[in-house]
Amino acid sequence: MTTYAEKAIDRLIDKIDKLSNPTALGLDTRVEYLPPSFDVEKDATKAIFDFNRALIDATCDIVPCVKVQSACYEMLGLAGMKIFRDTLLYARERGMITIADVKHNDIGATAEAYAAACFGPDAAFPADFVTINPYLGIDGVAPFLTRCELYGSGVFSLVRTSNKSAGDFQDLKIDGRRLYEIVGEKTAEWGKNLIGKHGYSSLGAVVGATWPDEGKKLRNTLSHTFFLVPGYGAQGASAKDLAGCFDEKGRGAVINASRSLLLAYKKRDTGDFAAATRDEAIRMRDEIRKEVNIKC
Amino acid sequence: MTTYAEKAIDRLIDKIDKLSNPTALGLDTRVEYLPPSFDVEKDATKAIFDFNRALIDATCDIVPCVKVQSACYEMLGLAGMKIFRDTLLYARERGMITIADVKHNDIGATAEAYAAACFGPDAAFPADFVTINPYLGIDGVAPFLTRCELYGSGVFSLVRTSNKSAGDFQDLKIDGRRLYEIVGEKTAEWGKNLIGKHGYSSLGAVVGATWPDEGKKLRNTLSHTFFLVPGYGAQGASAKDLAGCFDEKGRGAVINASRSLLLAYKKRDTGDFAAATRDEAIRMRDEIRKEVNIKC
Repeated sequence: MTTYAEKAIDRLIDKIDKLSNPTALGLDTRVEYLPPSFDVEKDATKAIFDFNRALIDATCDIVPCVKVQSACYEMLGLAGMKIFRDTLLYARERGMITIADVKHNDIGATAEAYAAACFGPDAAFPADFVTINPYLGIDGVAPFLTRCELYGSGVFSLVRTSNKSAGDFQDLKIDGRRLYEIVGEKTAEWGKNLIGKHGYSSLGAVVGATWPDEGKKLRNTLSHTFFLVPGYGAQGASAKDLAGCFDEKGRGAVINASRSLLLAYKKRDTGDFAAATRDEAIRMRDEIRKEVNIKC
Repeated sequence: MTTYAEKAIDRLIDKIDKLSNPTALGLDTRVEYLPPSFDVEKDATKAIFDFNRALIDATCDIVPCVKVQSACYEMLGLAGMKIFRDTLLYARERGMITIADVKHNDIGATAEAYAAACFGPDAAFPADFVTINPYLGIDGVAPFLTRCELYGSGVFSLVRTSNKSAGDFQDLKIDGRRLYEIVGEKTAEWGKNLIGKHGYSSLGAVVGATWPDEGKKLRNTLSHTFFLVPGYGAQGASAKDLAGCFDEKGRGAVINASRSLLLAYKKRDTGDFAAATRDEAIRMRDEIRKEVNIKC
C-alpha cells in the first residue's frame, strides 16, 4: 500500500515548483497518432502503451504531471483499460503526478464505487487526481472528498469547460451571475477542508484556457481553488490566454496539452518522436514561463 | 455485426408494450449483495456475473430492460469491466433492451471515443442506450447522436437527478425557469431528429422518481422525450410518485429499480434468490400498472 503523508495538491504544487513548469502531458493517445515505426497491426494496445511509456520517459524530468483521458482507452475494451491503468502506474513510477480524466458523476454508493476505483490501496485504476462533473451537486462530490482526506487524493471538478458550447448551460445567468461562477463558488466551499500548505485545496476546478476572461474572473474570486486548464495548443489557446489562471506568485494552475505534445513529431524533423515531444514540452514550458511569473 | 432497422426508442417502447411493463432491472451488483450460497472468496467477479445471469434468466420474459451501472464493475478492475460487458451482452442475448449507465461527458474526439465504446459494430461495451451528463452542452452530446442515427442506438441525458442535492445546481432559477427545465428543453431540441414511430426520441432524459412535481412538469412540456426514471424502491419513491412521468397512453417512461430487486431475497422466504427477484419484479410491475394507464 502506498501511503501519502501529504495532500495531493501539495504534492502537485511541490512538483510544479521543483521543475518550474506548470504543465501536464495529456496522454489521450489513439492508434492513429502513432508514428509509422509502431506496428499497430500486430498489437494496437501494446503499441499505444509503448508510445506512452516513451513519452513519459522523455519528459518525466521536466514535466510534473500527466493527464490520462479514459475514453480512448475504454473504446479499445479490456486491453485498452489495462493500458489505461498501466499508463497511470508507469507515470507514477517515474515520479509524475497522475490525473485520471474520467469525468465521473453519480450519487451515494455509486459515487463511492467510482472513487474506490481510483483512490485508496485497492484502487483498480490508481491516480493522484480524478476529474468529476458536478451537475448532481454535493451528493456526487462528497464520496470523493472522503477518500481525498483518507488517502491524500485530489479531484478536479468541471467548472468552465474549454469547448465551444460550454456556454449552453454554463453561461446561463442566475441573479446576475453565470452558472459556472456559482459552480466555482460551490466547488471552493466544498473543498475548504482540503486546503494544503500552499493555500490551495485538493478539490480543484477544470477551467478551459480557451476562455481567458472567464479564467481570470474565476482566479480572482476562487483564491483557494487550483485550476486544471485544458485547451492549450491544438484547441487554440495560447500562453497569453491562460496567464489569468495564475496567481501573483505564478501558482494556481496546471496547463494540459495533449495533441500538440503527442503529435509533435509531425512538426519536427528529428526522426525521434519522443525527442520531438520533449522539445515541444520545453517550448511550451518556456512560452508559459514568459507569460506567467514563475520562479525558475 | 448486429444491424438495427429500428430506432432504439422504438425497440424499447415495443418491448415495454409487449410485456405491459415499463420497468428496468438495475444491475448495480456488489459482492456484498450476493446470497451466502455464492462463493465470493474464490472468484468474486465470476460470482457477480453468475448472480446477474440468474436474475436476467428469472426476469427476461417479464421485464423489458436492464440498466447496468458501470461504477461497481469498474472498481473491480479489468475482471469487473469484463463482467460489465458480459452482463450487457447476456441481457441482450436474452432479448432485453440494455442501458449502460456510464454518465459519460466530454467533447469532440473524446466524446466520440466514449460513443464508440458503446455504440456500433466494434463497440467494446455494447448497449442499446447509454446515459450521459449534459453540463458541457451540445459538443458533448452530438457525437452520441451521430452514432444513434447510424446504429439505432439511444441516449438518456441527465435532466433532473434522483438524489437529495439534485437542486444544488439543477434548481437554480434563470429568468423564472429552473436550470433542469432548460436542460430538459435543450435535450428535447437536440433529439428532434431521432423521433421514432411512437412519437418519442432516442435522446431521452433521466428524471428522478423522487421528485414527482418536477417529473410531472417535465412530462407536460417535453412531449417527445422519453424518461429513464431512477429512484423507485430503495431510494424511496413509490408508484404514485412516478405516475406523472407517463403520458395519457401510459407511455413515456421506464422505471428503474436496483436494490429492491437485487436484494429481494432478503425480504422473501423462498430460499431462491432469483425467484424472489422475479416476485418483486411482478409486484413492482403490478403496482405501477395500478397507478398508470398501461394496456395489459
